[in-house]
Amino acid sequence: MTDFAATRAKFDLPRGIVYLDGNSLGPPLKGVTERVRQTIDSEWGGMLVRGWNDAGWMDLPDRIGERIGRLIGASAGSVAVGDTLSIKIHQALAAALSMRPERRVVLSDTGNFPSDLYMARSLIETLGKGHLLKLVEPEELAAAIDDSVAVLMLTEVDYRTGRLHDMAGLTELAHAAGALTIWDLAHSAGAITVDVESSGADFAAGCTYKYLNGGPGAPAFIYVRPGLQAQVRPALAGWLGHDAPFASEQHYRPAPGIRRMRVGTPPILQLAALDASLDLWDRVAVADVRARSIDLSEFFIAEVSRRIPDLKLASPRDPARRGSHVSYRHEDGHAVMKALIARGIIGDFRAPDIMRFGFAPLYNDEADVMTTVAQLQDILGMGSWDIPEFRKREAVT
Amino acid sequence: MTDFAATRAKFDLPRGIVYLDGNSLGPPLKGVTERVRQTIDSEWGGMLVRGWNDAGWMDLPDRIGERIGRLIGASAGSVAVGDTLSIKIHQALAAALSMRPERRVVLSDTGNFPSDLYMARSLIETLGKGHLLKLVEPEELAAAIDDSVAVLMLTEVDYRTGRLHDMAGLTELAHAAGALTIWDLAHSAGAITVDVESSGADFAAGCTYKYLNGGPGAPAFIYVRPGLQAQVRPALAGWLGHDAPFASEQHYRPAPGIRRMRVGTPPILQLAALDASLDLWDRVAVADVRARSIDLSEFFIAEVSRRIPDLKLASPRDPARRGSHVSYRHEDGHAVMKALIARGIIGDFRAPDIMRFGFAPLYNDEADVMTTVAQLQDILGMGSWDIPEFRKREAVT
Repeated sequence: MTDFAATRAKFDLPRGIVYLDGNSLGPPLKGVTERVRQTIDSEWGGMLVRGWNDAGWMDLPDRIGERIGRLIGASAGSVAVGDTLSIKIHQALAAALSMRPERRVVLSDTGNFPSDLYMARSLIETLGKGHLLKLVEPEELAAAIDDSVAVLMLTEVDYRTGRLHDMAGLTELAHAAGALTIWDLAHSAGAITVDVESSGADFAAGCTYKYLNGGPGAPAFIYVRPGLQAQVRPALAGWLGHDAPFASEQHYRPAPGIRRMRVGTPPILQLAALDASLDLWDRVAVADVRARSIDLSEFFIAEVSRRIPDLKLASPRDPARRGSHVSYRHEDGHAVMKALIARGIIGDFRAPDIMRFGFAPLYNDEADVMTTVAQLQDILGMGSWDIPEFRKREAVT
Repeated sequence: MTDFAATRAKFDLPRGIVYLDGNSLGPPLKGVTERVRQTIDSEWGGMLVRGWNDAGWMDLPDRIGERIGRLIGASAGSVAVGDTLSIKIHQALAAALSMRPERRVVLSDTGNFPSDLYMARSLIETLGKGHLLKLVEPEELAAAIDDSVAVLMLTEVDYRTGRLHDMAGLTELAHAAGALTIWDLAHSAGAITVDVESSGADFAAGCTYKYLNGGPGAPAFIYVRPGLQAQVRPALAGWLGHDAPFASEQHYRPAPGIRRMRVGTPPILQLAALDASLDLWDRVAVADVRARSIDLSEFFIAEVSRRIPDLKLASPRDPARRGSHVSYRHEDGHAVMKALIARGIIGDFRAPDIMRFGFAPLYNDEADVMTTVAQLQDILGMGSWDIPEFRKREAVT
């Protein structure tokens, strides 16, 4: 059983802050600064260029890929780390489209992250082969999957509402229609139980600066189903994905397996920070995180419902259909969130009217929930009550 | 006049090391660790997600782009920072090819960096429109430029031999034939005087971990000629290149100018390290660096020529045709370089027989040159002499 008091103690959140925006940028773990300092001073400064071998920099993306793979249900050798999520989406989509040359539809939904849609359209435009990005409402997806679809490209957890797609179910429908699937796990990895391999997903990609706490601009990852890897002819054939990166051959030969999805020189300082952050997951079970995320979210929704009954839940009410953040709609949402932040409750706002509250069980607890509800209630003029009182109860519990 | 004793004092090279591989990975400046520590502790840890605005993270790539622009003769607003050099080459080539839709040849030479060639071929394959990557010997380029050429894509300084192309001259020939140009400045930025704008280059890209000392995996940069920027329809249309990145619009609208070449979330820790490294350039004139690089290289070649006359220079003898590294061919080059490294002289080896010695005037000096020549002479059995003796003379000079 994961010890969440112990995980919380690994973070050093600013005093007086309730942090509910780990779904945008997770906070640093205590050991990160020291690890990065060591990477700069001892490795970069001490070994200089020899760090690529002597400090294991060349293998760092692979080692981190394995660590992330374990958190999303991927078997060894199926996750590569590097670049940004947008680049990884491009790689996946280019590969998938080349595997379905006779089909022209990329099916997605209106809940997908805008950047994924931009990347899809720019690839389609670059290809110039008449592909169509077809967007439907999330609930219309199943009916829209037919044999015109080359690729079903979705974000598992909606960045605004937290609505959670049925990855296995939709993938099964897609496969039955002969389509491939690409899953964006930005709001999934480290937040909910993901089992890419048993769900049958063909490609997946995600970022590491949210629930994995890798730091601002931490690199992305990409998963390719083991059985599919050998068919991938990389659209971004950088030297690091070459079978012999240092041989300086004039022709590209893709590395076996997932390593061909690597592109350029890996960002060692960001990778060191990410690697140090992932240490925490050695003592954490994703299923425990998911269970506690549901507890905290349900507690939050119940308390808001009781104390601020008019506030409109934008997230699915069923926790099984929801990721790890809870959203409410409010016409003055931007101002309300600003007021919350001024009081030290950091959530965020997404246009036009969404207030997001992300729950990261590694450091959030019931006191965070109650403090947030109390402040929200006060700001919305729904009465106030003694927050420290709750803190005291919490300490006793 | 740049004070090179002062710049050398800003580095903290390991005792006993002569570092001649700054053309592969530059060493850290003294202030880098502290700047990154502050970025992690005060900004990421203290401000959390608010760092994107409050710590200026969102604008950091732009600010760094301006700083790099000044070092390569680019006017304000024409350099974007991010991703890896391979990705930036892809962006430039995709844009250039779309601007010459009726032409099919990408002209390059056998001295180009392999990854640039891989990226070109993978883009050509993705496009599937019958483009051809045509490779000629460097000296045959001028004759090969004709009106079939869509893009002339070259690395200015050959990564093996240091051979320096005439950027202005070749660009003029390309333009006369109606072709666009892409210049890879990996071994140019911070090493030689580059004037992208007055040379007429259409696109340029480079890395920042060599002579700019940005650290392992530091982000790349891309330059687009100001008059061309509005015509670029980004092939990698990520959210950060959107005109309104936070509006979450479903459709992509490219940001005005160079910002459309941004793709995904910027790597803040790497950018902080790079930014701290670039501080040094506030007191450095690139022309001074170039002049001193030539002095050091010429001194090295003269001493090698005098003491090890059989060693075969792989670099051009004329310093005006050479970048900032000097290469020698030796059939046992790999073993010789290993022996040098064992003695603390860090250069590097490139297959099949090239020993590279990079001169970075910000921290290399005449004593480095003489120590290297003496050790090389000793290893090659060409006699030995008292190195400390030189160090003493050097100190007096």
